[in-house]
Amino acid sequence: MSAKEETSDRDNALFEAGIKLGALYHQFIGTPVSTETAEMLERAIERSVALQPWVNSVEVSIDREKVSEIENQFKYCELSGVMLDVKVVVLYGQVEVHARLKYEDEMDYPLMRVEKITKGLIIE
Amino acid sequence: MSAKEETSDRDNALFEAGIKLGALYHQFIGTPVSTETAEMLERAIERSVALQPWVNSVEVSIDREKVSEIENQFKYCELSGVMLDVKVVVLYGQVEVHARLKYEDEMDYPLMRVEKITKGLIIE
Amino acid sequence: MSAKEETSDRDNALFEAGIKLGALYHQFIGTPVSTETAEMLERAIERSVALQPWVNSVEVSIDREKVSEIENQFKYCELSGVMLDVKVVVLYGQVEVHARLKYEDEMDYPLMRVEKITKGLIIE
Amino acid sequence: MSAKEETSDRDNALFEAGIKLGALYHQFIGTPVSTETAEMLERAIERSVALQPWVNSVEVSIDREKVSEIENQFKYCELSGVMLDVKVVVLYGQVEVHARLKYEDEMDYPLMRVEKITKGLIIE
Repeated sequence: MSAKEETSDRDNALFEAGIKLGALYHQFIGTPVSTETAEMLERAIERSVALQPWVNSVEVSIDREKVSEIENQFKYCELSGVMLDVKVVVLYGQVEVHARLKYEDEMDYPLMRVEKITKGLIIE
Repeated sequence: MSAKEETSDRDNALFEAGIKLGALYHQFIGTPVSTETAEMLERAIERSVALQPWVNSVEVSIDREKVSEIENQFKYCELSGVMLDVKVVVLYGQVEVHARLKYEDEMDYPLMRVEKITKGLIIE
Repeated sequence: MSAKEETSDRDNALFEAGIKLGALYHQFIGTPVSTETAEMLERAIERSVALQPWVNSVEVSIDREKVSEIENQFKYCELSGVMLDVKVVVLYGQVEVHARLKYEDEMDYPLMRVEKITKGLIIE
Repeated sequence: MSAKEETSDRDNALFEAGIKLGALYHQFIGTPVSTETAEMLERAIERSVALQPWVNSVEVSIDREKVSEIENQFKYCELSGVMLDVKVVVLYGQVEVHARLKYEDEMDYPLMRVEKITKGLIIE
C-alpha cells in the first residue's frame, strides 16, 4: 500500500506543521537581534513562513526581556530558542493543526508541540 | 479537550518527522560542498539529525552528478535542494513514519513527503 | 610581535567587512521570499547587519525579476546568491571600507569584493 | 581611483579571512551536536571551509566540556559560539592571514580576530 493512499488530511497537516517549525527555527536562529529590531524580525519571519504551502497563519514573538538580558556589549544578541515563541496554524484539506515552538524552562529545550487539532470546520 | 490528550502516536510521529526534515534542510543548505567532500557531509548531517529525539534512522544522499554540474570555477558549490535526497525514519511509541526529502524535477521543488506509516511493532 | 600591534585600522576594517558579508550570506540564504515579501526581508536583513560592530551602513537589494523567474508553483522561492546585491560600509577608526556582495553572471558566483577604501574623512 | 587598483594582497587576505569566519559561523551554529559527534562535525566544517577560495588551512575545535555541560535531556545541544574555536589561514598572493574565532568569556562574545599577518613567503 502506498503512502499516498494511506495519509489523511490530519496526517498531512501534522507533517506540514512540523516542517514549518523545524524550518524556521534552523533558518533564523543566529540572526543578530536587539530589542529595537525584534519587531521587524518577527514580522519578517512571519511573512517568510506564511509563503509556504498550507500555512494558514503564523505568529512570532521574540521575548524582549530575554533579548535585553542576553544582549552583549554591542547591544544585540543572536536569536535563539530561549527567546522564541511561535504559533503556526496549518490547514490541510479539512484539518487544522495549531502547533507551537516555545522554550520550556524546566526542560531547557525549545519544545515544538501540537496544541490543537480541529476538523471539519464548516457547519451550516 | 487538551491537545496532549488528543494526539496519538501516529500524530506525533508525523509531526516529528516533519520537524526533522524542515530543520535539516534549513540548517545545511548553503554549505560549501564538492564531489570530494559530499560523503563526509552526508555522514555529518546524518549524525546530527540522528541525535534528535524520536529519530530511528536517517540516510542522506547528495547527488554527485548534480554537484559536479553546478560546481563553480573554484570546484565547489552550495548544498541545495536539487542535489539532496534524505530519508528519515521516526519512531514514536508504536508508530514508525518514513519520510523523505527529494527534489521533484517536474515541480522544481524539494518536496518533503510521507512515504510509509507502520504501526504495531509486531510481537508473536 | 603580536597581531594586535600589527593590525591597522585599514586591516581591521577590511577584516570586519568580510565578516559581515560572509555572515549575512550564510544566515539568510534559504529564507522563503516572494516579490511581495522581498522589501520587508531587505529591511530586516539590513537592520540585523547594522547591529553588528563597526557597521556604518548596509543596503540590501533583492532582485524582484529574479525572484519572479525562480518562484515555484507556491509563488515563492528561497533567497539565494543570484538575487542578492548587498552593500556594506564598515568604519573602523579612521578607515571606511565599502564592500559588496553581488552575483557575477560570468563567474556564476556570488562575489564579495572591496569597492572602495577611504581614510581620514574629517578635516577642518 | 577604483577599488580594484587600490587593494593589496594584504587587504584582500584580510577581507577573505573575515568572509570565511563570518560564513562558517552563521552556516553551522544551530547544528545538533554531542560529545560523540563533535569530531565528525569538526572535520565536516573544516572540509567545507577549505573548499572556498584562498583558504590555506582551517582547524575547527568544538569544546567537549562545554558540549556536555550544555547537553539537554536528549544528550545533545546546538552548536554555538561558546564551544567553538576556529583557526583559518588565508593566503592571498604573498600575504598570509591567520584569523581566529574564539569565545571570549569576559566579553561574552564569539570574537573573530586577526592573530598574525605574514608576508613574502621567502625563497632564497
